[in-house]
Amino acid sequence: MTSTVLVFLDPAHPDGRVEDASKPQLFVTDLGATRGDGVFETLLVMDGHVRKLPAHLRRLASSARLLELDVPEHEAWERAVVTALDEYQREVGPLQEVVVRLVATRGVEGAHAPTCWVSASAPHPNAKRQREHGIDVILLERGYDSAIGERAPWLLLGAKTLSYAVNMAALRYAHGQGADDVIFTSSDGKVLEGPTSTVLVAHAETDDAGRVTAKRLVTPQLDSGILPGTSQGALFAAAKEAGWELGYGPLEPEDLFDADAVWLISSVRLLTPVNRLDGKAIGADPELVRALTAELAVLFDRIA
Amino acid sequence: MTSTVLVFLDPAHPDGRVEDASKPQLFVTDLGATRGDGVFETLLVMDGHVRKLPAHLRRLASSARLLELDVPEHEAWERAVVTALDEYQREVGPLQEVVVRLVATRGVEGAHAPTCWVSASAPHPNAKRQREHGIDVILLERGYDSAIGERAPWLLLGAKTLSYAVNMAALRYAHGQGADDVIFTSSDGKVLEGPTSTVLVAHAETDDAGRVTAKRLVTPQLDSGILPGTSQGALFAAAKEAGWELGYGPLEPEDLFDADAVWLISSVRLLTPVNRLDGKAIGADPELVRALTAELAVLFDRIA
Repeated sequence: MTSTVLVFLDPAHPDGRVEDASKPQLFVTDLGATRGDGVFETLLVMDGHVRKLPAHLRRLASSARLLELDVPEHEAWERAVVTALDEYQREVGPLQEVVVRLVATRGVEGAHAPTCWVSASAPHPNAKRQREHGIDVILLERGYDSAIGERAPWLLLGAKTLSYAVNMAALRYAHGQGADDVIFTSSDGKVLEGPTSTVLVAHAETDDAGRVTAKRLVTPQLDSGILPGTSQGALFAAAKEAGWELGYGPLEPEDLFDADAVWLISSVRLLTPVNRLDGKAIGADPELVRALTAELAVLFDRIA
Repeated sequence: MTSTVLVFLDPAHPDGRVEDASKPQLFVTDLGATRGDGVFETLLVMDGHVRKLPAHLRRLASSARLLELDVPEHEAWERAVVTALDEYQREVGPLQEVVVRLVATRGVEGAHAPTCWVSASAPHPNAKRQREHGIDVILLERGYDSAIGERAPWLLLGAKTLSYAVNMAALRYAHGQGADDVIFTSSDGKVLEGPTSTVLVAHAETDDAGRVTAKRLVTPQLDSGILPGTSQGALFAAAKEAGWELGYGPLEPEDLFDADAVWLISSVRLLTPVNRLDGKAIGADPELVRALTAELAVLFDRIA
């Protein structure tokens, strides 16, 4: 806890107000704490560089709009991130690998002003282990059909809200089954997303000599009630430049079982291969999985 | 804010630890604030009496079990409530009408101990106005089918969690439509619940002289993925003793439009008549609505 740096966005402090995260800083009447009513982003700093900050700020703004939550402009967040990272270097250590969280809650009950902060801390050691060794995943029903996001905006399906109890419960359920993570499916049988990640699927065509001649990278339809992945978006752009074909679902579980490789991708854990799905090995050729993972990981590492 | 009394449950303070709610008391790394990961109850004190405390404590324990959250035993909550109400009398005023919240979060990240508190404050003036004048309600899809709660425990449908962003968004959506509140429906067309209340429906049979000869009180099936209402449970018991027939769904929207009266009931707002649903007046006979409301309100007022 002492290794968490905290900066509140505060109109009286244009660069943000640094506070001590090892002391209480939130009111018990904050609607973020009592109703999970707010939005957030988690992003990664690598070797001093904040990855995909504009994409995260755009998604934060979009989530806030869906919640009718008035949050500060991008520049205020950017300045608070700079302050937080300065402070992190001074108080904790070098910016080799740092997790930055942006949080905006609806604020204290009756105050009608959001509570906004930036925190910076070291990543959980699990993240690195999982992306190096891969993970076992189970499919779980999310309960919604894949068209409901469009017709029921009050379900906030495209917003990254603080109301993550179900995502956390799904992960606990997976751990109870001996798995590491979850891929949610819709009531109409479509592949959606992980509780904290986006699903990516690869198909490769090879010639008689086993050389890869075409590569296709697919992710679930963006309008199926999932969160638009900032990592998926960035990797897709890079993969396209590198000659990959791109596709946007619909995907069904069979498409995952038939794939040459499946990954969960997120800003902090990065590109993490799925070894087994519901107990079945994914990717007929482990060499090919490794090669595709290595290729995409290099592309993803280079992302600004 | 100064009129909120705050008592943390704390093993070192058997009767609870009184803190100043007008000062920050929560860590920004509390999983209640960052993930909506926790459970809560809201209950009402009337004329010095805490209404339905055992039922609320039972539901809190049941919610916590669904979240695999280890919360203190009932006695610790009871003692903290007593401390909070003592403090409220001393600092704020008499216990005529006080809202008490019980909250348990998963605690600070990495600490593996829940953060638990009791707060006491004055009710929002809206509650009284709404139960006296009735409310306009719209039907909104909840997105789930009514059987999913049973087969997908990770969706936490029977738990009262801190992840209330969707409930709050549905209420905002209703307000944007000029309505006061929402009744959720399932994807298979069943009536579920309000975002913060339980649905009650009455049918009365009358003789030729217009005298009520039989009264039936119905609520949606308890196993349809809704929260078991402590108020509904208590009122059902009282209504049964007073000669009402009881029924447990399934209910469809038509059953609401055809009813003699419809209410939303909750611990704080109490029994609140629905005047209009999706713009259509509910209850063909306003006199009968008033009589049934008055009768049930008296029964509900008497509840311990």
